[in-house]
Amino acid sequence: MKKTIGILGGMGPLATADLYRKLVTLTDAASDNGHIRVYIDSNAAIPDRTAAILSGGPDPLPAMTDSLRKLEACGADCIIMPCNTAHYFLPKLQALTETPFLSMLEAAAKACRLRYPGKTAAIWGTKGTLASGLYQKALEAEDVPYLVPNEVEQDALMRVIYQGVKAGAPPEAYRTDYLSVLDAMKAQGADYYILGCTELPLAAQLLASDAPAVDPTEELAKASIRFCGYAVKEA
Amino acid sequence: MKKTIGILGGMGPLATADLYRKLVTLTDAASDNGHIRVYIDSNAAIPDRTAAILSGGPDPLPAMTDSLRKLEACGADCIIMPCNTAHYFLPKLQALTETPFLSMLEAAAKACRLRYPGKTAAIWGTKGTLASGLYQKALEAEDVPYLVPNEVEQDALMRVIYQGVKAGAPPEAYRTDYLSVLDAMKAQGADYYILGCTELPLAAQLLASDAPAVDPTEELAKASIRFCGYAVKEA
Repeated sequence: MKKTIGILGGMGPLATADLYRKLVTLTDAASDNGHIRVYIDSNAAIPDRTAAILSGGPDPLPAMTDSLRKLEACGADCIIMPCNTAHYFLPKLQALTETPFLSMLEAAAKACRLRYPGKTAAIWGTKGTLASGLYQKALEAEDVPYLVPNEVEQDALMRVIYQGVKAGAPPEAYRTDYLSVLDAMKAQGADYYILGCTELPLAAQLLASDAPAVDPTEELAKASIRFCGYAVKEA
Repeated sequence: MKKTIGILGGMGPLATADLYRKLVTLTDAASDNGHIRVYIDSNAAIPDRTAAILSGGPDPLPAMTDSLRKLEACGADCIIMPCNTAHYFLPKLQALTETPFLSMLEAAAKACRLRYPGKTAAIWGTKGTLASGLYQKALEAEDVPYLVPNEVEQDALMRVIYQGVKAGAPPEAYRTDYLSVLDAMKAQGADYYILGCTELPLAAQLLASDAPAVDPTEELAKASIRFCGYAVKEA
């Protein structure tokens, strides 16, 4: 029996749309009926994750739990979250349910080890994700060397994510910030980039960036397709 | 109190992803929390609609009803279906629930009247949609003149939809068919095209077609945003 997916989404909505599209286009299917059944709650009411982790913002757990319950009621066989920062709350959510969460960060760290063995990753993400140390831990578990952006670089990434993609701004609005972090971390020794906030693969795509990168959204999509018993389409 | 949307989807999955992305990008919102809460059941198990209408294929109503119940249980305030042909079953589904369905065909017909007053539309769609007469009726209600593809043109459109987009084929595989119907119906007097199967806006986009067209997926997204009490983003 093939499995179904529940997407605990809305963090942000465009990133959820990106994950869902990647799930569809990466599934090896020749007709509608060859695809995975996917339930999505794009819950725009979930409070900002970084604000909750760093500055005492409203707790997102109650709204996330509400979405979890809806996806469980639909009958989802696994839960995935297209928001890297949200993974800070994953252990607490997992304790509330027997339905397994698949981790975007573990999927990304595995891809780093396989695709760029011995090379140094630059972890890009929100300040919440970086401060939580979640990516650092996931990469250490896979023996992947990494660099973390400094304060100036983190500020630039936050502008790309919040005033750029989440605000629906055109790519011209964040091109300079994006490229400045890319150049600065390359100079520090980064060989490739983890687009560790779900808004960043969208930014990379809109900016047509061809810098070597791992896209955690894509890696989570592939891991989910395999978990459900379907085949990943070869590029 | 702003309203939420339930998407009865999976017909096909890529078209559902397209509607969802359009809902997000067309909502005038400056942050995650300014968006609409959207529930999606991308139900890949729903049997083919055209086969059921035209050739005694399996009835899609039981699977569609299962999705409807899940979306109702989530608390959706309206239901939308990113599949034109599925609208054949809308009256039967509407009779099962008090949650209103918003019609993609009515939204498209209104857009035709407003954007191309007095001009002649070519209705593109599956054989199931065209045989059902649903678009013809929706356009007549808005006094929109129209042409229907002939048998040869319908065969070409079915290849674009089924062997092309739904099968995940590259655009080169269906470019000739697409352009042949475009040219033939222009010669017959069509001024613009209704992309009346949710796979067709995807084909148009991948082929970079700039022929004048109404995209029912986009019109449904806009109608849904307004129904929920949100503002549509100006282009």
